[in-house]
Amino acid sequence: MAKARKTAARNPGRKKYVYFFGEGKVQGTGDMKNLLGGKGANLAEMSSIGIPVPAGFTITTEVCTHYYNHNKQYPADLERQVLDNLKSVEKTMGGKFGDPQNPLLLSVRSGARVSMPGMMETVLNLGLNDEIARGLIEKSGNERFVYDAYRRFIQTYGDVVMGVQPRGKEIDPFEAAIEKIKEKRGVHLDTELTADDLQELVADFKKIVKKRTGKTFPDDPTEQLWGGIGAVFDSWNGQRAIIYRNIHNIPHDWGTAVNVQSMVYGNMGDDCATGVAFTRNPSTGEKKFYGEYLINAQGEDVVAGVRTPEPVAKMARQLPEAYTTLEGIYKKLEKHYRDMQDIEFTVQEGRLWMLQTRTGKRTTQAALKIAVDMVKERLITKKEAVARIDPAQLDQLLHPTFDPKAERNVLSRGLPASPGAASGRVVFHADEAEAWAAKGEDVILVRLETSPEDIGGMHAARGILTARGGQTSHAAVVARGMGKCCVAGCGGIAIDYGKDLFSADGTVVKAGDWISLDGSTGEVMLGKVSTRQPKLSGNFATLMRWADSIRKLNVRTNADTPHDAETARKFGAEGIGLCRTEHMFFEGDRILAVREMILAQDEAGRRRALKKLLPMQRDDFEGIFKAMNGLPVTIRLLDPPLHEFLPHERDQQKEMAEQMGVSLKQVQAKVTALHEFNPMLGHRGCRLGITFPEIYEMQVRAIFEAAANVLKKRVKAIPEVMIPLVGTVKEFTLLREMVSRVAAEVMAEKKTRFDYLAGTMIEIPRAALVAHQIAESAEFFSFGTNDLTQMAFGFSRDDAGKFLPDYVDRGILEIDPFQSLDQEGVGQLVQIGAKRGRNARKTLKVGICGEHGGDPESVKFCHRTGLDYVSCSPFRVPIARLAAAQAAIE
Amino acid sequence: MAKARKTAARNPGRKKYVYFFGEGKVQGTGDMKNLLGGKGANLAEMSSIGIPVPAGFTITTEVCTHYYNHNKQYPADLERQVLDNLKSVEKTMGGKFGDPQNPLLLSVRSGARVSMPGMMETVLNLGLNDEIARGLIEKSGNERFVYDAYRRFIQTYGDVVMGVQPRGKEIDPFEAAIEKIKEKRGVHLDTELTADDLQELVADFKKIVKKRTGKTFPDDPTEQLWGGIGAVFDSWNGQRAIIYRNIHNIPHDWGTAVNVQSMVYGNMGDDCATGVAFTRNPSTGEKKFYGEYLINAQGEDVVAGVRTPEPVAKMARQLPEAYTTLEGIYKKLEKHYRDMQDIEFTVQEGRLWMLQTRTGKRTTQAALKIAVDMVKERLITKKEAVARIDPAQLDQLLHPTFDPKAERNVLSRGLPASPGAASGRVVFHADEAEAWAAKGEDVILVRLETSPEDIGGMHAARGILTARGGQTSHAAVVARGMGKCCVAGCGGIAIDYGKDLFSADGTVVKAGDWISLDGSTGEVMLGKVSTRQPKLSGNFATLMRWADSIRKLNVRTNADTPHDAETARKFGAEGIGLCRTEHMFFEGDRILAVREMILAQDEAGRRRALKKLLPMQRDDFEGIFKAMNGLPVTIRLLDPPLHEFLPHERDQQKEMAEQMGVSLKQVQAKVTALHEFNPMLGHRGCRLGITFPEIYEMQVRAIFEAAANVLKKRVKAIPEVMIPLVGTVKEFTLLREMVSRVAAEVMAEKKTRFDYLAGTMIEIPRAALVAHQIAESAEFFSFGTNDLTQMAFGFSRDDAGKFLPDYVDRGILEIDPFQSLDQEGVGQLVQIGAKRGRNARKTLKVGICGEHGGDPESVKFCHRTGLDYVSCSPFRVPIARLAAAQAAIE
Repeated sequence: MAKARKTAARNPGRKKYVYFFGEGKVQGTGDMKNLLGGKGANLAEMSSIGIPVPAGFTITTEVCTHYYNHNKQYPADLERQVLDNLKSVEKTMGGKFGDPQNPLLLSVRSGARVSMPGMMETVLNLGLNDEIARGLIEKSGNERFVYDAYRRFIQTYGDVVMGVQPRGKEIDPFEAAIEKIKEKRGVHLDTELTADDLQELVADFKKIVKKRTGKTFPDDPTEQLWGGIGAVFDSWNGQRAIIYRNIHNIPHDWGTAVNVQSMVYGNMGDDCATGVAFTRNPSTGEKKFYGEYLINAQGEDVVAGVRTPEPVAKMARQLPEAYTTLEGIYKKLEKHYRDMQDIEFTVQEGRLWMLQTRTGKRTTQAALKIAVDMVKERLITKKEAVARIDPAQLDQLLHPTFDPKAERNVLSRGLPASPGAASGRVVFHADEAEAWAAKGEDVILVRLETSPEDIGGMHAARGILTARGGQTSHAAVVARGMGKCCVAGCGGIAIDYGKDLFSADGTVVKAGDWISLDGSTGEVMLGKVSTRQPKLSGNFATLMRWADSIRKLNVRTNADTPHDAETARKFGAEGIGLCRTEHMFFEGDRILAVREMILAQDEAGRRRALKKLLPMQRDDFEGIFKAMNGLPVTIRLLDPPLHEFLPHERDQQKEMAEQMGVSLKQVQAKVTALHEFNPMLGHRGCRLGITFPEIYEMQVRAIFEAAANVLKKRVKAIPEVMIPLVGTVKEFTLLREMVSRVAAEVMAEKKTRFDYLAGTMIEIPRAALVAHQIAESAEFFSFGTNDLTQMAFGFSRDDAGKFLPDYVDRGILEIDPFQSLDQEGVGQLVQIGAKRGRNARKTLKVGICGEHGGDPESVKFCHRTGLDYVSCSPFRVPIARLAAAQAAIE
Repeated sequence: MAKARKTAARNPGRKKYVYFFGEGKVQGTGDMKNLLGGKGANLAEMSSIGIPVPAGFTITTEVCTHYYNHNKQYPADLERQVLDNLKSVEKTMGGKFGDPQNPLLLSVRSGARVSMPGMMETVLNLGLNDEIARGLIEKSGNERFVYDAYRRFIQTYGDVVMGVQPRGKEIDPFEAAIEKIKEKRGVHLDTELTADDLQELVADFKKIVKKRTGKTFPDDPTEQLWGGIGAVFDSWNGQRAIIYRNIHNIPHDWGTAVNVQSMVYGNMGDDCATGVAFTRNPSTGEKKFYGEYLINAQGEDVVAGVRTPEPVAKMARQLPEAYTTLEGIYKKLEKHYRDMQDIEFTVQEGRLWMLQTRTGKRTTQAALKIAVDMVKERLITKKEAVARIDPAQLDQLLHPTFDPKAERNVLSRGLPASPGAASGRVVFHADEAEAWAAKGEDVILVRLETSPEDIGGMHAARGILTARGGQTSHAAVVARGMGKCCVAGCGGIAIDYGKDLFSADGTVVKAGDWISLDGSTGEVMLGKVSTRQPKLSGNFATLMRWADSIRKLNVRTNADTPHDAETARKFGAEGIGLCRTEHMFFEGDRILAVREMILAQDEAGRRRALKKLLPMQRDDFEGIFKAMNGLPVTIRLLDPPLHEFLPHERDQQKEMAEQMGVSLKQVQAKVTALHEFNPMLGHRGCRLGITFPEIYEMQVRAIFEAAANVLKKRVKAIPEVMIPLVGTVKEFTLLREMVSRVAAEVMAEKKTRFDYLAGTMIEIPRAALVAHQIAESAEFFSFGTNDLTQMAFGFSRDDAGKFLPDYVDRGILEIDPFQSLDQEGVGQLVQIGAKRGRNARKTLKVGICGEHGGDPESVKFCHRTGLDYVSCSPFRVPIARLAAAQAAIE
């Protein structure tokens, strides 16, 4: 930073758009990610600690923002700054861009604040033309390497900058030219092509470009450079990149930096190599250098998964000197960055160059192990360990795995690329995966190999199976990032896209057939394999213990049954924050009594029916109180409108009429009478409790009788009676009086005492605004952020599917507000409600029980807002615990 | 006040519950209405300015509140305070309560903060038993008067305190006893009964009480007094009173005071009289003493309308001394109160006693004339004049009257009791009036006479016709209060409740037949008579001119057609605040084009259909711009969900399919696809504008082309393009860009320039919370308080009928929030939105365009919140103007 400031100070009034990196002279620092992008900051940081990085410079993200804000024009001073820096690069690397005598070639890469692997464009080998190629041959003595680099350059530049792309179902015209020449030569592999062949390809490629675009391929290296820079900036708003950002919640206005860097080559001969590695195992977390490399190859060959690479350990024998340097560097990097690193390197003529280091993506298991290990190694603190686990990723750990006792009809076995268990119906195309998933189908996406175009389909699929590629192939990296099960490089399957099937060892699997993937073993199984609950590792328990010792926020669960309550308690739930009573109304015979109540002509008739329901509800509550012995249980009184308990199809209405001994007309008349235009905003929640007080009275009695009954069995019930949908203070006080009266009655009848609270959901915007009034008689608030979101936005959750995905895609909303609390809008209502409520009653308990209670960002918001607890579904309890701890750390 | 404070100071630690009034010693003042009720404060005030008032005391409204909060128990000290004050009354009046030698009789009356005529109970002649009656006969020498008072007392007390009431269809048992004795004596009038007859009735009445209640009628005057006090407090929560308060928006927790006062008698002989009068004419406002009296009668005889009273002027001849005193008093009262007074008086043996004075109810015409006259008389200021007109009452003035040229088939003529014109179908019972009106029928309630039980039916009726009673009868007073047309005392009609018909001069009118009433002439006409627009008086214009000079708030109108716009402009509208464009989509052939657009498969298809709509919309806008030449016109882009434009009945769907040349299935499929669970929260407003940008683009183009076109005809259009249902800033900015682009396009095409603004409705709660963001690119806000109320409360207006009336009846809500803005809750969102919006953009124009824009209380709220304008329906524009002026005065 100090250097950057000095540079700026030296040029007052001139904005700095370009930052140099490389041996001896570094202008950026590692913490300038927002300005230089992750890659740029990283290169600067590596340079500054003495890691050998090919020299180059970074054009800042501000230029990207300027570019999009000014109709794709660059700032006036940019050209001069680029050319100045190019001179510095030439000086450092000892070559000259565009000089046939001593040519310097460049790469141009994107680099956003956060890594978006494969989502934006890259141009390599930039700075070549026929004359320079000849000069480079002279210098390197390796004609084949030069023409290979040249044809690769034209191919990429032609695609990325000049827009030569396959039309319709045609295969890529460059690839077609390669196939043609291979056929002509009678060879099968690219590597079998000679230097002459490649030179011929260069000419062919240029013709293709001319024919497709009407433009001559540019010979001027400077023109090439600007073309490359523009293409990278343009690719920030490419469709792939936009989809990726939507999935990963990356703001669209961040922009990307552009890194222009000297090329080094892993494909100049057998003393050359290229590789990617992790400083620890990204699948298991094991502390062991882990990676893959290819001799005589360019970097993209490793990632693309076309050739299957060698494990990095083998390099110690093949390229011993470079390997020793690499070992020193990876240790230095881990010590410097204090986290597991994902590195890219190239060996050119025996000399090692580091291209990139970044915090490595890892499975959740690995993340837990690495975090716990690093605490033991005194590399990081417990707080840092807790802060490093992505709570959302825990999900992966908490969901079922295959039952080890279940029969496995193993078809084939690939690489265990991303752990987890998945069953689904086979699809062969990303768009099909999306379409089927949209219809609610579980699908497994099966591909030869995946590419960035497949992102949407990969997201939609339960699991991914590829026939090609390694642990670091596109499929593997992306799947791990998504926490999605993936089996990669499964050579045993033969895919026939044309016939929509694959075969494995004689078995034919067609599109639509069920298969199962085990991402931890690499097994591919026929059919659906039964699953079992996850067993959590010791590292998980250790880390959660640390998290619990840090967090301030309590974590409860939403549970309607004793079973759910027990599951959640095992996951660390400290009470029930939402027990919905309406689900209990649907079970077995109860629905009959409920319908009898709805059909009743008067209060007396309703009371008769409710009398039948009372013992059933009481039993429910007893079961739940037992499961949560000693912990608070918030029970929400009936919430949905009554018509939800009546059938809407004629046949079912007829059946109901027969069962209940009434006429079909009576049933239909009641359905009609109860019809609502906007049921979400209709006669439900406490509005029912006010018009039909006997319903809530029965429920409250069932709760208190259950509390009294379990007390005799030494079970401590702590009921919290929650009145839903309150919008005005009088709704609450009216019903609160009833609760007090019934409590007193039950205590007198049962000759006992029990503690209880009476409170309300804050889910109506108005309730948040008059929270001070309500808190005068309410003992707790639970923000029902689902409904609060519906009303604050005016979105019906049931209908918003018609426009909400479009809103998120187009950046109108950064994230679906039903998934993660809209802190900017809805969050204000939570803040206002909590603050005003607490002002009126200091001891007010405040929590949230919408589905947001299990969303890490929302949990953090709740911590900052000073709530007492969040409540979420059982499986999300650990996520909330961890997020709460992170919030306390932040 | 000073006296009251002194009294309290004298008794530290003891709460004062009872306030004395009467000659020489007054404890209350006229401004203690909240504590003493209107009547109590009034009696205190009158006493203090030397008006002859029979002595008495007032039990405060706080006792009523205490009574209801403590299970109908009185405060401990009340009894002592009542007895102390009773002694003072005895001393002042020179009689003794319960003393047969020198008896004092008392009345017990209710008295709330605001008058609720006839809604609560009154007991007169309290303090009589057989012995005291004899003593009173001795003292007064008038046996008939005493037994008449005695039997009236038992009758009332038996009903009100002891609960003797007719069962089922039986006639009142006391009335039955009267009829029986009249029959026995062969007489027709009550006045023909002798003292002996009345004494016999006293005995009969006591037997009735004993038989009906099992209790002996109490002889102890003190017991009678407490019985009376309790009955008055109880009547505060009688059904009639509750309904009245709901209609008049009087809070249920105010409570009533009780006035205990010495009786004076207008029925002790022919030197006695009782009367009611207004200091000016309450129908026309004419400055002329106006009233009615009856010789030898009690006050209730005048109000009940049983005997038809004499005009008060006649009293100058009949009781000249008393009349002279009365004239002096009414002038003194009007000077003191500076407003028209409604007074009650009694002459007992030639001496005048004032029982009550209060601000007189009046028709709106009268109110305007009185206010304007009093300014001319220099009695009040212009501001006071403006402040005195109830804006809601203006409604009465602004609605149509009968066309004077229309043929009138006059059946009969009664008293012009409350002005206005009404046509409706005849009903004879209040409950029928309510039932028919609920079904959307216009009804006229026809009764012999009305009573407080009929309030609900009177409210539901368009007009009221009675066969009996005068200008101050129950029907007349209540109808004027309601601003409802009434013809009273129409002796020419003979009602037969049994046969559900009335006849007039040989014509028989049955229930369900149409009649028309002219409340200004007293005419009753057969059939429906055509109406015409109201002609506003000079007083109206004068007062509105004063109002306009005072108010700060602009008043616009909601108008969708040139005709509405013109009407509103005549009423003083200063622009259009809401022009809805969807209504334009339904007219004539347009709906076909709209449906074609909805059915289109793609954007191109939609654009083809929209192209047909463009010229039609443009014509609409041209018409509106012409009507509003030079004034701003806020046009809201399409708001409702698209399914509202498709038919939902199979037959109509079939018709549509045929018209459009598509299959029924296609139509049904589209209806199904567009179905929403909660359309209110669905795909509508700007959400449509975002998913189908071509729709809004067409509308915006139509607006701007229209503006450009009329400009050539020297019409200045000031369009304000309003984007509805914005909840997030990006929705607005996206669409705002389109508006700017289209404006630029149209200006270029038409080679002209026009001014316009682009803004949004704030109707989504979230929008109010992020108003600062939106205001950065919005030039105006218009609060759509209808939807804002729906979402802030979570009430669907279409469905809330299931519980909202119940909520208002039970005091959960003080008023229907769709009628008058919920200032406490929804109002906060308006305040937040306006404040944050203005913070971000100082010049932001802020208004409201919900229906609340015509509600006086809501208008006042808008003034206090600092909005720039309100917008309301054309007929409510003057109401809003006046309310705005009053807000500025307040």
